[in-house]
Amino acid sequence: MSSTAPEQGGGQGYVRHIKVERPVLGNNLADAQRLEMALQKNVGADSVHIPFHLLKGLPGKLRHWDYSARAVMFKDRRSWRLVDLLPPDPDGSQAGQVLGAAVDIGTTRIVIRLVDLDTGVALGETGLDNPQAAIGPDVLARIHHSNRPGGLAELQKLVVDGVNTHLAALCETCGCTTDDVFILTGAGNTAMTHLFLGIDAFEIIKEPYIPCINIPDTLQAADIGLKIRDGGLAFLFPNIGSYFGGDLLAGIIFSDLDKKEMPCLVVDVGTNAEIVVGSKDWLIACAGAAGPALEGGVSKMGMTAGPGVIDTVAIDPATREVRVHTIEEASPIGICGSGMIDLAAALFLSGMVDIRGKFVPETCGERLIEQDEIPAFVLVHAPASGTGEPICLTQVDLNSLTSSKAAMYTILEVIVKNTAGLEFEDLDKFYVAGTFGSFINPESAISIGMLPDMDRSVFEVLGNSSLGGAALMLTDTTAFDRVMAIRETITYIELNVNQEFMNMFSGAKFYPHTDRSRFPSVPGR
Amino acid sequence: MSSTAPEQGGGQGYVRHIKVERPVLGNNLADAQRLEMALQKNVGADSVHIPFHLLKGLPGKLRHWDYSARAVMFKDRRSWRLVDLLPPDPDGSQAGQVLGAAVDIGTTRIVIRLVDLDTGVALGETGLDNPQAAIGPDVLARIHHSNRPGGLAELQKLVVDGVNTHLAALCETCGCTTDDVFILTGAGNTAMTHLFLGIDAFEIIKEPYIPCINIPDTLQAADIGLKIRDGGLAFLFPNIGSYFGGDLLAGIIFSDLDKKEMPCLVVDVGTNAEIVVGSKDWLIACAGAAGPALEGGVSKMGMTAGPGVIDTVAIDPATREVRVHTIEEASPIGICGSGMIDLAAALFLSGMVDIRGKFVPETCGERLIEQDEIPAFVLVHAPASGTGEPICLTQVDLNSLTSSKAAMYTILEVIVKNTAGLEFEDLDKFYVAGTFGSFINPESAISIGMLPDMDRSVFEVLGNSSLGGAALMLTDTTAFDRVMAIRETITYIELNVNQEFMNMFSGAKFYPHTDRSRFPSVPGR
Repeated sequence: MSSTAPEQGGGQGYVRHIKVERPVLGNNLADAQRLEMALQKNVGADSVHIPFHLLKGLPGKLRHWDYSARAVMFKDRRSWRLVDLLPPDPDGSQAGQVLGAAVDIGTTRIVIRLVDLDTGVALGETGLDNPQAAIGPDVLARIHHSNRPGGLAELQKLVVDGVNTHLAALCETCGCTTDDVFILTGAGNTAMTHLFLGIDAFEIIKEPYIPCINIPDTLQAADIGLKIRDGGLAFLFPNIGSYFGGDLLAGIIFSDLDKKEMPCLVVDVGTNAEIVVGSKDWLIACAGAAGPALEGGVSKMGMTAGPGVIDTVAIDPATREVRVHTIEEASPIGICGSGMIDLAAALFLSGMVDIRGKFVPETCGERLIEQDEIPAFVLVHAPASGTGEPICLTQVDLNSLTSSKAAMYTILEVIVKNTAGLEFEDLDKFYVAGTFGSFINPESAISIGMLPDMDRSVFEVLGNSSLGGAALMLTDTTAFDRVMAIRETITYIELNVNQEFMNMFSGAKFYPHTDRSRFPSVPGR
Repeated sequence: MSSTAPEQGGGQGYVRHIKVERPVLGNNLADAQRLEMALQKNVGADSVHIPFHLLKGLPGKLRHWDYSARAVMFKDRRSWRLVDLLPPDPDGSQAGQVLGAAVDIGTTRIVIRLVDLDTGVALGETGLDNPQAAIGPDVLARIHHSNRPGGLAELQKLVVDGVNTHLAALCETCGCTTDDVFILTGAGNTAMTHLFLGIDAFEIIKEPYIPCINIPDTLQAADIGLKIRDGGLAFLFPNIGSYFGGDLLAGIIFSDLDKKEMPCLVVDVGTNAEIVVGSKDWLIACAGAAGPALEGGVSKMGMTAGPGVIDTVAIDPATREVRVHTIEEASPIGICGSGMIDLAAALFLSGMVDIRGKFVPETCGERLIEQDEIPAFVLVHAPASGTGEPICLTQVDLNSLTSSKAAMYTILEVIVKNTAGLEFEDLDKFYVAGTFGSFINPESAISIGMLPDMDRSVFEVLGNSSLGGAALMLTDTTAFDRVMAIRETITYIELNVNQEFMNMFSGAKFYPHTDRSRFPSVPGR
């Protein structure tokens, strides 16, 4: 499983060096029109929008700069537009830096990356818990709050203030200021995008589930309270519907799925398991709440990564000796999702969990205790624990993991086999996106039947693909057109939780599956 | 000479009644996209821009209004755009009114007209002296001031504050408020337009005479300090160059010159004499400062119309009895331009001025006196005058009028004969625009050789064509495209004041002309 960073799209970025035709008697075209002509020629477009505020002082600037300039541009649905006009020769000081900020607007976590628009280089990254969590932990609670008087504005202010504060701090760390940030791009799910923009989100959760907007126009960042350069722009990824957000579209362009010759698959393990399969010729997506059987989802398992959190677990099948690894090798305080998958795989492979996903008292031995009358596996005994309490995995936790892994496998099977009509073997690449996904050990995930039993080299970690797509939008001038083309061509499958699905789901709840032939590489007991 | 008001362009205006498709399961298009589709269908365009601020509350409005609405629209260079969305059924109260304001931004005088965007009906009009006169009486002085620190902002504030105050008063008179004004359109010369927008005008007066902008984008009215409805738009007519302003383009669409089957001519007698001749097939314009011979121009003659100002003069050729008419029939206090043309014609026809434009002592008799050693004709004796002083026309005044009328005739001849290759007789209509032009008696103007000796029915008064064009832009959705088409096709002639011109000018300084055969209808002495 190797890490990948899809390369930047072709052509120049958004910082252009331009030369404007000099005015002479006999060619009395206005300065703005000559500037527009130079920009049009540079970007190869029929029209470039020059914002009104850049007209002020334009004649003086053009003459002072001898009709050369650096133009900071952006391209969206409407047209190419000029963001700002700068002196032609950056003097090498920080003042010449032209930066953009990419933001992954997660329901739980927000991540901000600072990118040099001239070179495409990422300067730094920072993250924060979504401050809207103070209102409610999940989308539903926040949308209900947004419908109360003042609620929407409150939610918007929380997230925008959070981004402003952390972006300013990130800029300081990188030796620049928010005045150097000309464009901010954001990708989030449909609800988070609405709340970020401060527009009505309530209909998103009411049948027939209609967002207020699918394709937000590029805005003046100041219009939504973002503190970047005066006149700077804010671009939010479009969505396809209430359950198909801009984060997923961002992930698709980041994975280059829309450019692939052979079918590939992206699974983003976030609040929901979102899956897109396809190639340059077709794309099929499946996302969103998938009925009661799937409630909770894999991302609810375990705790957020941090010092002392167990991220890897190994059990010697012969001796049943348990070894754990914690982040920063601190005393263990809990277990994260990827650690839990490792643990479940190790327990299964060492015979301590049976094919139904139940603890086996005989093999678990003294590590199996009862907590509130529920069987629990002691992963770390109290004396070795950083909390003073034993760190346990209860049968309830394990059942939840079992449901989640079964749901994941079933959805993958439905979309790849039943919908796309492929076999897993037909997939050229299997990208695992999302922060959680980045830490999954595919060997373990395959062992418990969460991911299909494919050649391990097919799996690739994408990392935060939503952030990656947002960053791509800052540097790849073709990115927006790709997003719009994907919107037009993608087939979105509402997961139909019918009897057939439930039958498939039932088989997938076994370890690794009722049909062992699907997992030939998983050792039998 | 009959008054004409060109009829409104074809099709609907900018207030549209729309129905938005209802959302259902299976069609999860966002509200904004369904609104855009309804608007696109209504106006027959591929794209309609919905401003961000109208997204706030959109889902609630659409549902509350049962998916019907009145849409206030506007169309410019970029696209159709939604200005505001209103409840579907105006309740008949003033609250339902959708108004626009058309503004003629004259160097000397500003005129504002309030128009009902729904019906196209003009509700009222008001005027004010351009408050920038406090800085300088003419364009040159103001542009020089605009180049001083804070000067540009000061000039802009003066004019915008003036418009705000008078528009608010006009609204009150008409029983509405500025909140009912959704769009403001303005037409002015290139310099006045720049100063109104608050953008650099200095290069306009410096070789090679380059404006900052030719085609201003439609703006949020608030961005330039205009106080109309929140989110209301401001549209300023484009120009073709420093000496070919939006006022002239507004005049062309108002005159419908670009739709004429047969060649017609528009002359706007403002600060400069601006002339456009042409038809739907071609247009030729000539405008701007025409060299030292023409300095001053016809508009500088006499005083501004007002009570007591002499606007008509008649002299009995037999008895040489002088009769004057004053505005509001008050005691005479002075003479306006049209009165002066009447006076010059009457003096010439009664033999009191010779063909060289000099007073004839024998025929003038006791009315010819000397003022500071300059011959002067006493039009009104002191006892009858409202000022207590005699009202006189000096030989200097008359020389100035002679130069002006010769310049006007020569420019007309150059553009019609030398440039367009027509005879005056080929013109189907001869439109006289401008406030000053409205009062000219063509009989008198022909008698002194200012206007060509054509069938009197060919002459038509257009009135304030700049204001008329600005108002047309509020109600005729094809107006902007017409303006852009005119910009593309019109030929602009720089008046070349060469030896040939000066020869023609010399002949035109006689009364009515050295070549009497050009003025067959003017009685010989």
